Amino acid sequence: MSGVVGAGTGTTTAGARHRPHMQLGVIGLGRMGQIVVNRSMDAGHDVVAFDLSAEATATAAENGAEPADSVADLCDRLGGPAEGDGEEKRIWLMVPAGDAVDATLDDLEPHLSDDDVVVDGGNSRFQASVRRAEATDAAYLDCGTSGGPASATEGFSLMIGGPKWAYETMTPVFDAVATGPDGHDRMGESGAGHYVKMVHNGVEYALMQAYGEGFELLHDGRYDLDMETVARTWNNGAVIRSWLLELCEEAFAEEGSDLGDVADHVAGGSTGTWTVQEALEQEVPVPLIYGALAERFDSRNEGRFSRRLANRLRYGFGRHEVARRSDSE
Amino acid sequence: MSGVVGAGTGTTTAGARHRPHMQLGVIGLGRMGQIVVNRSMDAGHDVVAFDLSAEATATAAENGAEPADSVADLCDRLGGPAEGDGEEKRIWLMVPAGDAVDATLDDLEPHLSDDDVVVDGGNSRFQASVRRAEATDAAYLDCGTSGGPASATEGFSLMIGGPKWAYETMTPVFDAVATGPDGHDRMGESGAGHYVKMVHNGVEYALMQAYGEGFELLHDGRYDLDMETVARTWNNGAVIRSWLLELCEEAFAEEGSDLGDVADHVAGGSTGTWTVQEALEQEVPVPLIYGALAERFDSRNEGRFSRRLANRLRYGFGRHEVARRSDSE
Repeated sequence: MSGVVGAGTGTTTAGARHRPHMQLGVIGLGRMGQIVVNRSMDAGHDVVAFDLSAEATATAAENGAEPADSVADLCDRLGGPAEGDGEEKRIWLMVPAGDAVDATLDDLEPHLSDDDVVVDGGNSRFQASVRRAEATDAAYLDCGTSGGPASATEGFSLMIGGPKWAYETMTPVFDAVATGPDGHDRMGESGAGHYVKMVHNGVEYALMQAYGEGFELLHDGRYDLDMETVARTWNNGAVIRSWLLELCEEAFAEEGSDLGDVADHVAGGSTGTWTVQEALEQEVPVPLIYGALAERFDSRNEGRFSRRLANRLRYGFGRHEVARRSDSE
Repeated sequence: MSGVVGAGTGTTTAGARHRPHMQLGVIGLGRMGQIVVNRSMDAGHDVVAFDLSAEATATAAENGAEPADSVADLCDRLGGPAEGDGEEKRIWLMVPAGDAVDATLDDLEPHLSDDDVVVDGGNSRFQASVRRAEATDAAYLDCGTSGGPASATEGFSLMIGGPKWAYETMTPVFDAVATGPDGHDRMGESGAGHYVKMVHNGVEYALMQAYGEGFELLHDGRYDLDMETVARTWNNGAVIRSWLLELCEEAFAEEGSDLGDVADHVAGGSTGTWTVQEALEQEVPVPLIYGALAERFDSRNEGRFSRRLANRLRYGFGRHEVARRSDSE
């Protein structure tokens, strides 16, 4: 632990769990990782920061973090690997979900003991978090993080799974990174945090599609409406007011009522896919979440085969003229 | 007009349009109508109130409104029918959508001139509002009102259609009944207010169903989760935070994670049905809004015929045993 511990608790024997000021290692310094760094430091915590990009590490250093030039260096700066020496490591991973998490954990593993805590703040699949928690020597917290870069000021919503003592140990950091004490909680055992975040994202897809359908009907419907005015009026007192609706209002303000040149292909889909897969396993019908996911797949499809077959079948039974592609593909 | 006009504008010749304090007649004093009465009076307006229920009228009178014992009496108290005599009537209808609006307008019609303004603040179908606007001598404003009784303190979102001069005339009252100047706007010509409110409600159905699917998956899924904790954590910083999600949090706080004895039959459906009907006419696909509406129909169905046929067909092709109703119906 750094010597710059907050006043008033230096004599406690309870260790890091009750020290309001902590030392945190942050690995992964993209937009989200930088916010974790900055919000932690703003709350008085010390941060050692590392990213594969030296530029990203330098940015964190400019903001006041102690830079590390490798995972091993970061661990050295946080303290040694020995158990019970008061040098327990608290490390926040904010690297892309998937292989990058495993690669980082491989680098970390030689430096970890069971007094250490590792937080995965990314969008990992909950089953992977359960597997990683079992594989590592450290206490492993899976932490679903919602709010996006827009939350730099307000703070995130953090959904956390894993050992209770590790969650409690990290509470001062969670208080800082989240909106405050109400913005984080331990959902349950290992995997529960990313599980709840997965479902959060499935709901998010459906909410986006619901607003989208409403605004599309208003846009294509029988009145000439100003979409920003509609969204603003709804955001002030209507039942469907929400942060996503505020983002709709902002989008119409910046792009205009017809959304200018914004494309209609929508990227993403992994967490929504996982939600539907889990719902299938649990036999819980989620038609709206699936519909929103399917709409997203549809948006990326260049020429649906099903529509082409429909054209040919309308000829088959009704001799309706078959529309043909004008260009050869 | 009442003599209790606000200071500083008594000498203007521009008439009621620029007087900050107005006299308003309110017909229909249910939960929503009483809020219109109270919020108007809180803003310094004078209210004459009438409801078919003498008890409801008495409630408004206890709160400071001038009671009327009939529609005709209310009109008398607001002033005479003559044009240009400075006694223009401003009347807010908050009666149930449908026949009650037409019946009230029938009673009002002999007392109305083209200087008068009638606001329909209920959930009327937009086509009916267009028809009524054409039929009445008064300027007719269709006003979609969202927020429900919970908005007594914060104020409503008001989506208004109809003549611009009438909207501007009523602005001091709209400022009072809505959350403020940002909580109301003129959406467009006659019918546009109820059109936007109709779509609002369609979106509302889909949002409710989206949250419902997410919480159902969490409830029936593989972790033992506390629903209030999930909702509270999401409401603090997550992308899907919203007023409806705050109502979910409140529901779990009051009913428990499994919602106690709350039934699974869901009432309502008219505005959602209208939204889907309009989307069919406009050929705009609204699969989520339709799905949410269908789910509501499904919830009220005692034994789906389609499911019974599925049982019989599984026997037909696979000789799977046919489940039978245990009770005769």
